[in-house]
Amino acid sequence: MALNVTQKLIKAHLLSGEMIPGQEIGLKIDQTLTQDATGTMVMLELEAMGLEYAKTEASAQYVDHNLIQVDSKNPDDHLFLQSATRRFGMYYSRPGNGVSHPVHMQRLAKPGKTLLGSDSHTCANGCMGMLAMGAGGIDVAMAIAGEPFYVKMPKVWGIKLTGKLPDWVSAKDVILELLRRHDVKGGVGRVIEYYGPGLESLTAMDRHVIANMGAELGATATVFPSDQEIGRFLKQQGRKEDWIELAADKGASYDLHEEINLSELEPLIAKPSSPGNVVPVREVEGLPIYQSYVGSSANPGFRDFAIVAEIVKGKEVAPGISFDINPTSRQMLTDLVKEGHIASLLQAGARLHQAGCNGCIGMGQAPATGRNSLRTTPRNFPGRSGTREDSVFLCSPETAAASALKGVITDPRSLDMDYPKVKEPEKPTIDLNLLDEPLPYEEAKKVELHKGPNIASIPNMDELQDNLEVPILLKMGDNISTDEILAGGARVLPYRSNLPEISKFAFEIIDDNYYDNAMKIRDQGGHAVVGGFNYGQGSSREHAALAPRYLGLRVALVKDFARIHWQNLVNFGILPVTFVHEEDYDKLEQGDVLVFTDLRKKIQQGNEFNISVKGKGLEIMVRHTLSGRQIEMMVKGGLINWVKDRQKSHA
Amino acid sequence: MALNVTQKLIKAHLLSGEMIPGQEIGLKIDQTLTQDATGTMVMLELEAMGLEYAKTEASAQYVDHNLIQVDSKNPDDHLFLQSATRRFGMYYSRPGNGVSHPVHMQRLAKPGKTLLGSDSHTCANGCMGMLAMGAGGIDVAMAIAGEPFYVKMPKVWGIKLTGKLPDWVSAKDVILELLRRHDVKGGVGRVIEYYGPGLESLTAMDRHVIANMGAELGATATVFPSDQEIGRFLKQQGRKEDWIELAADKGASYDLHEEINLSELEPLIAKPSSPGNVVPVREVEGLPIYQSYVGSSANPGFRDFAIVAEIVKGKEVAPGISFDINPTSRQMLTDLVKEGHIASLLQAGARLHQAGCNGCIGMGQAPATGRNSLRTTPRNFPGRSGTREDSVFLCSPETAAASALKGVITDPRSLDMDYPKVKEPEKPTIDLNLLDEPLPYEEAKKVELHKGPNIASIPNMDELQDNLEVPILLKMGDNISTDEILAGGARVLPYRSNLPEISKFAFEIIDDNYYDNAMKIRDQGGHAVVGGFNYGQGSSREHAALAPRYLGLRVALVKDFARIHWQNLVNFGILPVTFVHEEDYDKLEQGDVLVFTDLRKKIQQGNEFNISVKGKGLEIMVRHTLSGRQIEMMVKGGLINWVKDRQKSHA
Repeated sequence: MALNVTQKLIKAHLLSGEMIPGQEIGLKIDQTLTQDATGTMVMLELEAMGLEYAKTEASAQYVDHNLIQVDSKNPDDHLFLQSATRRFGMYYSRPGNGVSHPVHMQRLAKPGKTLLGSDSHTCANGCMGMLAMGAGGIDVAMAIAGEPFYVKMPKVWGIKLTGKLPDWVSAKDVILELLRRHDVKGGVGRVIEYYGPGLESLTAMDRHVIANMGAELGATATVFPSDQEIGRFLKQQGRKEDWIELAADKGASYDLHEEINLSELEPLIAKPSSPGNVVPVREVEGLPIYQSYVGSSANPGFRDFAIVAEIVKGKEVAPGISFDINPTSRQMLTDLVKEGHIASLLQAGARLHQAGCNGCIGMGQAPATGRNSLRTTPRNFPGRSGTREDSVFLCSPETAAASALKGVITDPRSLDMDYPKVKEPEKPTIDLNLLDEPLPYEEAKKVELHKGPNIASIPNMDELQDNLEVPILLKMGDNISTDEILAGGARVLPYRSNLPEISKFAFEIIDDNYYDNAMKIRDQGGHAVVGGFNYGQGSSREHAALAPRYLGLRVALVKDFARIHWQNLVNFGILPVTFVHEEDYDKLEQGDVLVFTDLRKKIQQGNEFNISVKGKGLEIMVRHTLSGRQIEMMVKGGLINWVKDRQKSHA
Repeated sequence: MALNVTQKLIKAHLLSGEMIPGQEIGLKIDQTLTQDATGTMVMLELEAMGLEYAKTEASAQYVDHNLIQVDSKNPDDHLFLQSATRRFGMYYSRPGNGVSHPVHMQRLAKPGKTLLGSDSHTCANGCMGMLAMGAGGIDVAMAIAGEPFYVKMPKVWGIKLTGKLPDWVSAKDVILELLRRHDVKGGVGRVIEYYGPGLESLTAMDRHVIANMGAELGATATVFPSDQEIGRFLKQQGRKEDWIELAADKGASYDLHEEINLSELEPLIAKPSSPGNVVPVREVEGLPIYQSYVGSSANPGFRDFAIVAEIVKGKEVAPGISFDINPTSRQMLTDLVKEGHIASLLQAGARLHQAGCNGCIGMGQAPATGRNSLRTTPRNFPGRSGTREDSVFLCSPETAAASALKGVITDPRSLDMDYPKVKEPEKPTIDLNLLDEPLPYEEAKKVELHKGPNIASIPNMDELQDNLEVPILLKMGDNISTDEILAGGARVLPYRSNLPEISKFAFEIIDDNYYDNAMKIRDQGGHAVVGGFNYGQGSSREHAALAPRYLGLRVALVKDFARIHWQNLVNFGILPVTFVHEEDYDKLEQGDVLVFTDLRKKIQQGNEFNISVKGKGLEIMVRHTLSGRQIEMMVKGGLINWVKDRQKSHA
């Protein structure tokens, strides 16, 4: 059968399941990527699993998110991550080296491979003919430990590119066009695969731009073929031996079809506050701006900065504009310096920042209250910039540069100049020092983890007990979000690697006394919580399961669950059950004690079973929807214990 | 009579008083400098005074401290400052333009002029043949409003420089040598004036390094003559018309004498946690480091970065070292880029940060817990780096570079290479865009102040009471710095324009409960603090007086005061008194209640008077050194009340 590129990649890595859209498949993961905001917990999970050495072909830890060091927490985390990569046989990219996605592309990405990353823009490396996907931290920890990654078989959405981009229009406008057509849920359950003659004029880095923001469409992944251009890119990076050709078979088909004629595109812009809120730049032209911001993994290439430098060269940005340049990597910055572009930017009035994610993830460069900020970044969700009442627009580097000069949103085609031609450096810098190589196993096993005062190991978690008597500590209503279960924000997140500390914030928005009450009975069998519909909606943060589990939560009994939080509960050994008869919800009160007997046997034997309420003469029918694999995990007390046992049996 | 340079400068600006050391003199101020951490309060004070237009020759507002924008507070402040400079007829230096002191030197400093700045390192511009002094924000506000600056006539400390610096030894080692000899109070009550043949080999920027850290000796100012080298510097900056020659008269004398033979110096280093804790580098050689940090107003010149670049060129810094490069200004960074030095630094592994103060004032680049950090900055007070348990060493760029390569503290003379010769750029960049020019009055008066949500008015302050009973909330030792009284750094500084909020951080490094304890008795008469020698050394921030005053501090009783903090206490109506008998310090305990009776009369009648300690049968003789003008101000409750009354009586 003729296969498209996505199908080839999946078929080559299929460990379980069938390639039928919607069915769960298990995939072999060749490479992983973690960044520092998620990576510390991944490393603690690997420690708890008892991992001896990474089982992937390449696993890299990047420090690109938390570069602002106003106290010891971030630098202490960096040292911990460095020691953990040395211990577990991983690559380490030091703070200041740059953003994970482009650095990974330059140094490690290989056509034909799978990449799983604990960062939602991991999909960017799909530009290299890889199947590259974002996932939760523990999924990546599992992949590092050699376990499959389970995902529903996606539909493959073939997007044929024809024509050639006009002057002043670039790759960013291609992905903005797709967001204009389909909005932020348009890619859910799909892999986006680009093909067609339009590819010829798109460089590997242009494709990175397009693949990166597949995340904003909600796609499982974005896939490009590996063609001569990828070969050129790898050769330029001194890695021509890593190239293989990878193209769709003749006659291959797609589950869904789309076409974009590049010649017909014009400069586009996503208005506040959604990446799907896309209009032509000319429709918002003239709005005054506070900031023009160039950088991030959504426009990471040499070209993306050089074109801006060429546009502003010999001119000055409008008075009062904050013209922020956030370079992607030290390697790229070095070339931009050598080719004279940084001097042009500085002389035009740029603020030059350290290479890293910076303002893209709200770590610096926040705009003034209510002022318009133009950014080449991938996201403009409300408040993501750091400013509560922000007004962020997403656009191409060309539009950002033109607007910086004019002080108002400007269609770059209206500038009185020819479209500059950017020349890539003849021999670009190859900064091999960007990644510290993994230690060989014999050296790695001697390494001690370096834990600063704010890093605490994950405590042991016990197995599922056959008989539970658990009081209901909280009875909650509908639509409880993970923000209510465990808040995010600057008060809480600094403790992301310190479970005992972060647990103090669990459920505090709902009940100030939850922590104290839970701790009192944590070692006497723990407790349960009861909720309504859509329990655990919102952010995917796994701490919203991990922290309550640490405090002794054993059972969540609700009307129904939000998908990701349900998965996180299972992963951390909290039994998620729903009411078979919703009216039973009304019969339960805070303080009631739920009694589970023969629990292991019951969840293995069927999906529904009875529990009783102590001293109330009340029986309640509950339902679980665990798979066989998940039941096994639940009995052992969660994913970490399950993997720990497998590591032992492999030893 | 033959005059030295200091005496000439003072004589030319003397408005009141006599030039007798120790006597208060009033000086005409030609120029002012404010930075953003202190400037927002200055602008609020100008607004409160009803200022129409700056009365100085040049007043410049720099944005260099609060460049980290993780929310809207800092950018909102920047917009406020921009609007205020437009309103009051001042220069405005945008965020990213660079550190105030070198930018002021490049663009506005003029030999023969006085400069008052709300930054303790304002003295750096003494390198230009100016009388440049740091002061509290309100003093600078007064100067902008055309009022004299009052200061005690200093002794002039003539330091004769002979010889020539050996290879691997540079200007930083000169000032470290002076700190080694005289420690952090060695310059109190003095202006340091350099002269002699050794000057010939010191560039204007070298002299900036030396003048800058006069602040660490506690000196009132540092003065260099304006010679041909200053002429060369001004010509290079496109301002040759601003040069005048200024030298000591033949036969001029000094109150105090010292000599430094430059030829005999060797690389020096200040150990944690005081700039006076100086030893030769060789004595601490081999200590492992976490960080090597280059930048700040203490080593701001092209040379200071270029020498580092030349040393690390073609090499790599030791694994795991955070090699932080904090450029001084956009103009300097542009030249470093053009001359290839930034490329050398990046390729050696540098983290390149935005031009500004950054980690020097605890705004980023904090070291990991307990790890050694080497810095070319001027201060290493405990916790100033942002990390509570920090370990910061101060050294020359040469020592920082050598240590970065080796990963341990390294005497640069032990490097296996010739001392690199740094070539200044033939035609250095002149970035006229660094400073926005003041608006003419007719335009300025139409400008509205732009106030963000985090800017709060200064509450009313009551008059001095005749009878006080104030418990000692803190009894402290020697050398308490303003960083300990009110920390800088990213946690605290964002509230600099919001007194109720920033007060929560007062003295917290010394006593976590100070805020709560002070608030309890704030409206029952307030409290006192007791300290040792050199109380209030370090940063000039007036919040270190304003915040405790807001919390009810009425009296500071210490062995002696650092000059600027003493002035700030007076300005905000906190009575500063010293022990007449130092041994009385030992008789006091935290919790003792000091009783002042007939206070107004007593401070008006003489400098010494008795106070009693409640229930202890103890009398203590204290001394104040307030002038008649200051007594008047103290009685009214501080300078703001005093000015308010003057404004009324002028109306």
